[in-house]
Amino acid sequence: MTASDNPVLVDVHRGSLIESQHRGAIAVADADGRLVLAFGDVERPIYPRSAVKALQAIPLVESGAADAFGLSDAELAVACASHSGDQVHLDAVAGLLAKAGLDESHLACGAHWPVSEAMTRALLRGGKRPGAIHNNCSGKHAGMLAAAVHLGYSPRGYEKPDHPLQVMIARILSETCGVALDPDRAGIDGCSLPTHAVPLMALARGFARFGTGWGFAPERAQAAARLKQACFAAPVLVAGEGRFDTVVLRGLAPLIFVKGGAEGVHCAALPDLGLGLALKIDDGAKRGTERVMSEVLAAFLPKARNVLADQLDGALYNWRGLAVGRTAASAELRGALDGLAETRSRAAG
Amino acid sequence: MTASDNPVLVDVHRGSLIESQHRGAIAVADADGRLVLAFGDVERPIYPRSAVKALQAIPLVESGAADAFGLSDAELAVACASHSGDQVHLDAVAGLLAKAGLDESHLACGAHWPVSEAMTRALLRGGKRPGAIHNNCSGKHAGMLAAAVHLGYSPRGYEKPDHPLQVMIARILSETCGVALDPDRAGIDGCSLPTHAVPLMALARGFARFGTGWGFAPERAQAAARLKQACFAAPVLVAGEGRFDTVVLRGLAPLIFVKGGAEGVHCAALPDLGLGLALKIDDGAKRGTERVMSEVLAAFLPKARNVLADQLDGALYNWRGLAVGRTAASAELRGALDGLAETRSRAAG
Repeated sequence: MTASDNPVLVDVHRGSLIESQHRGAIAVADADGRLVLAFGDVERPIYPRSAVKALQAIPLVESGAADAFGLSDAELAVACASHSGDQVHLDAVAGLLAKAGLDESHLACGAHWPVSEAMTRALLRGGKRPGAIHNNCSGKHAGMLAAAVHLGYSPRGYEKPDHPLQVMIARILSETCGVALDPDRAGIDGCSLPTHAVPLMALARGFARFGTGWGFAPERAQAAARLKQACFAAPVLVAGEGRFDTVVLRGLAPLIFVKGGAEGVHCAALPDLGLGLALKIDDGAKRGTERVMSEVLAAFLPKARNVLADQLDGALYNWRGLAVGRTAASAELRGALDGLAETRSRAAG
Repeated sequence: MTASDNPVLVDVHRGSLIESQHRGAIAVADADGRLVLAFGDVERPIYPRSAVKALQAIPLVESGAADAFGLSDAELAVACASHSGDQVHLDAVAGLLAKAGLDESHLACGAHWPVSEAMTRALLRGGKRPGAIHNNCSGKHAGMLAAAVHLGYSPRGYEKPDHPLQVMIARILSETCGVALDPDRAGIDGCSLPTHAVPLMALARGFARFGTGWGFAPERAQAAARLKQACFAAPVLVAGEGRFDTVVLRGLAPLIFVKGGAEGVHCAALPDLGLGLALKIDDGAKRGTERVMSEVLAAFLPKARNVLADQLDGALYNWRGLAVGRTAASAELRGALDGLAETRSRAAG
């Protein structure tokens, strides 16, 4: 299957050349699924990967588990996180597990060196190797385990597609995004959970719903609001110091809820505008994703321009700190966003 | 400036989807510049980055410096290298510098953590930070310093575009690839040296010449042969254990000389076939580059299929070692290479 020719969204400049480029697609929609922006192929199903962690965490709150276990904002935020594995993250994950009567041995995500260089150095200095708790998905897994325990499900095999918790999550994803999910089309995520194929336009709709609660039954709207508020209250738990999602949440809550995923996926909710946003970079590069997300957020929310000044500047430096190039929105992306601004101001004026 | 629509070369599969894709262009040419394969835009100038290190090392031998300083194969190989920063690399770079009466303080490449995880861990355990010598380009810089000293040039500012050594290197690149270089189009590399804009078709021709010596004056042909032989004799010095270029050089010398560069560039010489090869992945991803290079080498040299079995298998595993997907040649790339095989067998038969 060949992807249609998605537009170039990001140019990477060096010297006098465009050295590299990133193509992709962007969808912005309201909670009814009406598209405000559709650039590139927004109908092709993609794996949202970690971008939908907050949706996968809905059972944790909706089931009553969060209340029963007395989960803090930090613990709810880390359940929605792709965390850096700093001590604050490890403590939140361990705390969440303990409140559910579980521990690190129950995690099925696998181990990897933490995203945090400081924690990696600390482990190395102590002669240690990372464990499952250092995995950037361990908070999501801990949240799922807690939900499973509260619902009376076995914590064993919670990561398998046919476990009742995963069946529940798949149904929530399907209802939230307004698409039927084909179990035969599911993939396996890096952390061993199922990942479901969903078009960008449906993800955008799902994030509009998550951000506003519109189209949700009351319990689900409350669960979504609780998770969103926790992420706003504890932005460093959702990613880590210096990372894009933490920068945005810290600087722009409650106007923007944002979450990235592997292979070039990034989603956001803009609750006051009633909108959701989903984008995918064809080649999977985070360099492309964060550039595009910065541009689109700034197009919808001028206040974002200040918080994302570095990302929008896009200067690239070499090993001696010399400025050698920059990332920039492509002419095509610029045109699409300028056209959007015109449309929105004509609609407003 | 928008790139033309280069073909998709690599599909990244997960579950039932093509999750991500990499586009790019490939040129294969002989020493006279006749194209044997031109897939995608091979006329557009690109920055070859580290792929042309062996060409940048020609003055080191051609000037007589290598003989005067008694450089070993390891030292010549590391002068052509993007090395991992293991002890063997550090020793070769330090040795090369010392023979020229210089030391690490003369290097202008800047410092970064070594590519080698083992060396990174060793530095951390010792409470140390990396120095310029750990920079993957330090061997190239050491070779340039030695050439400059032998030629009676100042070792200060050797990295600047107007230093006589860099002027000499630019001329060699221009003559080897058969293109005029526009100084206004040069960029700055990650290691602070100039990087020159050259089309893939010209790079392919340059590598055909480098591999065979055809079209070179005798001294240059000898210099190229000496550098090539050194890389064949000391393959681990050119990159490092487990890395693509080392695997290919170790397993397929003297049939293939290969060298990668940043931002998705990779070049090769196939001396017995009289051919050179140059490719660029549009988005810069090494994942795309190594997949494509493996496919193209295997298409020209069936023996490469064994040495590159893992790369051609392309299986992707998650953090728990579960098989979750694979990289594969796209249908378009497969078609181009199959068409090539037909053409070559008809020509032979």
